[in-house]
Amino acid sequence: MLQMLCPSTSHESYQSLVYFTFHETILSSESEELKQQPDLEKNARSEWVLNAPEPPSLWRQFSDSVAKTISHRRHKLSSLTHQSPPIVLLSVLQRIFPILHWARNYNLTKFRCDLLAGLTIASLCIPQSIGYATLAHLDPQYGLYTSVVPPLIYAVMGSSREIAIGPVAVVSLLISSMVQKLIDPASDPLAYTKLVLTTTLFAGIFQAAFGICRLGFLVDFLSHAVIVGFMGGAAIVIGLQQLKGLFGISHFTNKTDIISVLQAVYNSFHHPWNPRNFILGSSFLIFILSTRFVGKRKKKLFWLAAISPLISVIVSTVIVFVTRADKHGVNIVKHVKGGLNPSSIHMLDFNTPYIAEVAKIGLVVALIALTESVAVGRSFASMKGYHLDGNKEMVSIGFTNIIGSLTSCYVATGSFSRTAVNFAAGCETLVSNIVMAITVLISLQFLTKLLYYTPTAILASIILSALPGLINVSEAHKIWKVDKLDFLAAAAAFFGVLFASVEIGLLLAVVISFSKIIVISIRPGTETLGKLPGTEMFCDVRQYPMAVKPPGVLILRLKSALLCFANATFVRERIMKWVAQEESEDDKGNSTRTIHLVILDVSNLVNIDTSGIAALEELHKTLVSQGKQLAIASPTWEVIHKLKAAKFISKMSGRLFLTVAEAVGCKSEC
Amino acid sequence: MLQMLCPSTSHESYQSLVYFTFHETILSSESEELKQQPDLEKNARSEWVLNAPEPPSLWRQFSDSVAKTISHRRHKLSSLTHQSPPIVLLSVLQRIFPILHWARNYNLTKFRCDLLAGLTIASLCIPQSIGYATLAHLDPQYGLYTSVVPPLIYAVMGSSREIAIGPVAVVSLLISSMVQKLIDPASDPLAYTKLVLTTTLFAGIFQAAFGICRLGFLVDFLSHAVIVGFMGGAAIVIGLQQLKGLFGISHFTNKTDIISVLQAVYNSFHHPWNPRNFILGSSFLIFILSTRFVGKRKKKLFWLAAISPLISVIVSTVIVFVTRADKHGVNIVKHVKGGLNPSSIHMLDFNTPYIAEVAKIGLVVALIALTESVAVGRSFASMKGYHLDGNKEMVSIGFTNIIGSLTSCYVATGSFSRTAVNFAAGCETLVSNIVMAITVLISLQFLTKLLYYTPTAILASIILSALPGLINVSEAHKIWKVDKLDFLAAAAAFFGVLFASVEIGLLLAVVISFSKIIVISIRPGTETLGKLPGTEMFCDVRQYPMAVKPPGVLILRLKSALLCFANATFVRERIMKWVAQEESEDDKGNSTRTIHLVILDVSNLVNIDTSGIAALEELHKTLVSQGKQLAIASPTWEVIHKLKAAKFISKMSGRLFLTVAEAVGCKSEC
Repeated sequence: MLQMLCPSTSHESYQSLVYFTFHETILSSESEELKQQPDLEKNARSEWVLNAPEPPSLWRQFSDSVAKTISHRRHKLSSLTHQSPPIVLLSVLQRIFPILHWARNYNLTKFRCDLLAGLTIASLCIPQSIGYATLAHLDPQYGLYTSVVPPLIYAVMGSSREIAIGPVAVVSLLISSMVQKLIDPASDPLAYTKLVLTTTLFAGIFQAAFGICRLGFLVDFLSHAVIVGFMGGAAIVIGLQQLKGLFGISHFTNKTDIISVLQAVYNSFHHPWNPRNFILGSSFLIFILSTRFVGKRKKKLFWLAAISPLISVIVSTVIVFVTRADKHGVNIVKHVKGGLNPSSIHMLDFNTPYIAEVAKIGLVVALIALTESVAVGRSFASMKGYHLDGNKEMVSIGFTNIIGSLTSCYVATGSFSRTAVNFAAGCETLVSNIVMAITVLISLQFLTKLLYYTPTAILASIILSALPGLINVSEAHKIWKVDKLDFLAAAAAFFGVLFASVEIGLLLAVVISFSKIIVISIRPGTETLGKLPGTEMFCDVRQYPMAVKPPGVLILRLKSALLCFANATFVRERIMKWVAQEESEDDKGNSTRTIHLVILDVSNLVNIDTSGIAALEELHKTLVSQGKQLAIASPTWEVIHKLKAAKFISKMSGRLFLTVAEAVGCKSEC
Repeated sequence: MLQMLCPSTSHESYQSLVYFTFHETILSSESEELKQQPDLEKNARSEWVLNAPEPPSLWRQFSDSVAKTISHRRHKLSSLTHQSPPIVLLSVLQRIFPILHWARNYNLTKFRCDLLAGLTIASLCIPQSIGYATLAHLDPQYGLYTSVVPPLIYAVMGSSREIAIGPVAVVSLLISSMVQKLIDPASDPLAYTKLVLTTTLFAGIFQAAFGICRLGFLVDFLSHAVIVGFMGGAAIVIGLQQLKGLFGISHFTNKTDIISVLQAVYNSFHHPWNPRNFILGSSFLIFILSTRFVGKRKKKLFWLAAISPLISVIVSTVIVFVTRADKHGVNIVKHVKGGLNPSSIHMLDFNTPYIAEVAKIGLVVALIALTESVAVGRSFASMKGYHLDGNKEMVSIGFTNIIGSLTSCYVATGSFSRTAVNFAAGCETLVSNIVMAITVLISLQFLTKLLYYTPTAILASIILSALPGLINVSEAHKIWKVDKLDFLAAAAAFFGVLFASVEIGLLLAVVISFSKIIVISIRPGTETLGKLPGTEMFCDVRQYPMAVKPPGVLILRLKSALLCFANATFVRERIMKWVAQEESEDDKGNSTRTIHLVILDVSNLVNIDTSGIAALEELHKTLVSQGKQLAIASPTWEVIHKLKAAKFISKMSGRLFLTVAEAVGCKSEC
């Protein structure tokens, strides 16, 4: 880099105007003084490289990283120590229950907005909750219960302002597909419900624990691409499950993969079936979808889309009641148990033989539910310009589910569709969730009898109408354009969920995501560098075709992040091939290029291990035996430290340089 | 980097002598011309960055990498096409059977060396083979068989000149510990032997297949550190197994972990036991170890160490025969079946219910055997200054074992101890292996009856004497000094083998090795950079304490190789914390530092995925909302391409720079 200040070194071939102008200027003025100075400076600089302080030890790095993770909290606590006890208590309480903070500024204007938004999401929530409970193979009232207690708990603990809490489609599917492998809900619904509630408790405990231990990053292990693929696959699987309700099929499969479901649908056509279910369901599906279309075109009519599910339920129930269509083969919801959420402490079953599996399901459900909730919360928070602390959200959702599991609720989380409606309806605070919960509570108390004649096909069409929002084709296309391997992970999640099962799809996608990290980090890539004219930069000659290779010197940059056991041999062999190729390349043009110096730019190397150092040592030996020399340029801190510890630097007589340019400059000296 | 040529930009604070001297010189001569030129050049350079040709697509990279892997062979084949058919045939044959090549230059001088070396290793090989067969729970003759056919096959196919082929301790332990879980060798020795031979066939097929498919890198997946740990653990486990022979214990455990074995030894002391075995074994162990000590001190007496095991066998056998000690409780070898290797085609059992497990064991054994052989071969090849092609070695060892499995041999590979003796005895070619094989063959034919009275304690002490060479404490210490995480993998292999089982130790070590790659690649590290005085370099201010942070600019370098789903959120949050910290840091000193520009040096980033780009976008948004700007410096080729594909570059109005210095230079303009 400081090459241009060292006229003594290698001014053979760099035909740059700037360099020469500068060179002459220097020479004509105070050249002698400068000539020596750079040499001194260069020595000083190689001292800097070689005598850098030791990097923090592994233990120090680890403790630092733990400290950084918890410092946030410690910092906040320490700022409280100067305050009087009541203020400290209030402050801690406000941190745990943000409602204590924002309730003080609450006023009638805000309440009017929240009331409207709360009623709107309640109208969407009631039919969706019943539908999702059916999807989870639970009785309809459990869906309604889950729309009462969780929103109330979240309202006092949560820090988002828009999230609408309650049962969601993907989590319902996940629970039913995993728990029904343990107990068949058709043959023993009580035991199945007990397992679902126990799963909910486990999920809540896991979520709260992740938040308290600040393991929020676990949610990130499901990458954006994987979520896009998984949601798309899950939406199609959920849609396929709705065919049961839409066609009024009595003998359906318990499996979720597309092949089993289509086979079950195909088989059902051989039995006598009643087309009224289908006609009723699909006509209301068309109604809901067209109101949504209108709502999208005219933003002011968005409420039409929001209440159309409720309208469908009311109208279809009235139709069935008036025509007594249930006697002509239309399936109806029948009895929905009304009343307040009963306690479900006695339903939690820790003596089940499946307790390990239940805990595992709880973990998977916890992660998926958190991923959805954090994603929904963050995207709306960033629209309103505030930041959502992932770890705090986890604690809120976790306690929501722990308390939910004690009050007959299954896993609740932030619903994408209802949060969007809440936002569009102009909610101001979480009071809209309280309004929604109270509305659902009133319905549970007084209106469940009215749901007796509601046709199940309507519930199916309400769920179906919510699915297109989960399939994000444009995002998938964007992922394809930007990163093919990311798309592969998304495709694995999508097809895994579709053709195998929800867990296999997720597992496959996570394995692909992490394999990708390994492959990218260790693939044994190298590139030859040349000097960019007019600069002291050395860049890939393929990326910058104007770059010029200096004579007699081969400059190679490692493209991997690690030189380790898994790629060291490969890299060493490839470097030797480059050397052989460079020396023979110009043979055809009859001008053999002789390499005296091989410079290895290791700036990309984040770390090196003992196998990597051994490979460098062998490379050095081989080059020396061929009368060539090896120099290493731009090593990072840890790499310098390790090369020093392994005594490699003394073996290669200190040819370690701050930059490639300095390494090239050393050629004439060596 | 070209900062110093742009006097218009940011000459506020860099108090460098060189800079000012230079600056004045420029100004006094042709400043006007230069002032414009750099600007033009800088524009041209940002064009270079933004308009770089597209990097090779994923498919292209993949096909290139496949092509590179097989090009070696294609190149060789294409050079043959101009030759006549007989020459082509000879050339191909010579490639498959290197003996055709080197046999032409073979002469009597070389033969004399090889004869001496061959007889020396034969004397070591006979007692070792019997001992290792006992370790593998096979009849003694199988060890001798394995020292006949495999060396002959390897002699015509192999390309090493020093390797001594035959049974080795670690592979024998591995086979016995894994196969005896399927069938107990004590209750059904024939079925057990059949499984071992079938395992040998599978191992051979896997080895040959790896070589043919050029999957030689698979061997690298067991890193040097893991091998050191594994060998150390295996040596101790093998040593513990020898306690049975040394103490003459009749009721021993089938398990290999240290706790079970020590328990078995402890229990055996409660039964009456005969100390003569121990006295005999340990006195000859002392004899062998002292000859080795002498051999190490005086290089000329190395043959004493080499033949001391054979001397021990002869002397102890004579002692037992003369004193009839076998009637007083000394355990003896008894009948060893003599004669040539019988065919074992009928012993290969593919109808066993354990066929899948046998294939799995074959795979593990194949890898361990290859790792040992390639490591041994390479280390001696590099001493003699030639290179060993890993893939070719795999094919040779593979065919050696395939043919071995048909002729009553179990898995053979390059033995470290015998190869060292072979090298020290001055072998010239693989003829020493042929001499050894013929010597063993003659012993099998005529001398097996003489082994009847050989005490088993002597075999145990011969194996014990070979173990210290497998425990490499100094190498373990070196690994600890250089790389703590590598040492962790080694320790996992060591303690896994010692306390659990051979497979668990290996599995643990491989999992740790790969987790290490993931952790290093994604750990969310960032470092603040400052300008090194006298240069245009920007370096970590902790590594180079003399570096100066430019005013109003925060320069951060990502230390991870990937900005991806697993660390993007973390990195984004940490950058925001850095910004907040920098702005508050000087608060105590009453001089608030205001950051206008955050420069992200992404030179370490090998790749980025959609989550990473999303994190950058959010970072950009947040900074803009705080009145700050984000600039990205030194992106690599693929990162530029992806940022372009995701349209991020246009969103941040092209603030993408070739170097940090140029990004700092842009501050005054922005």
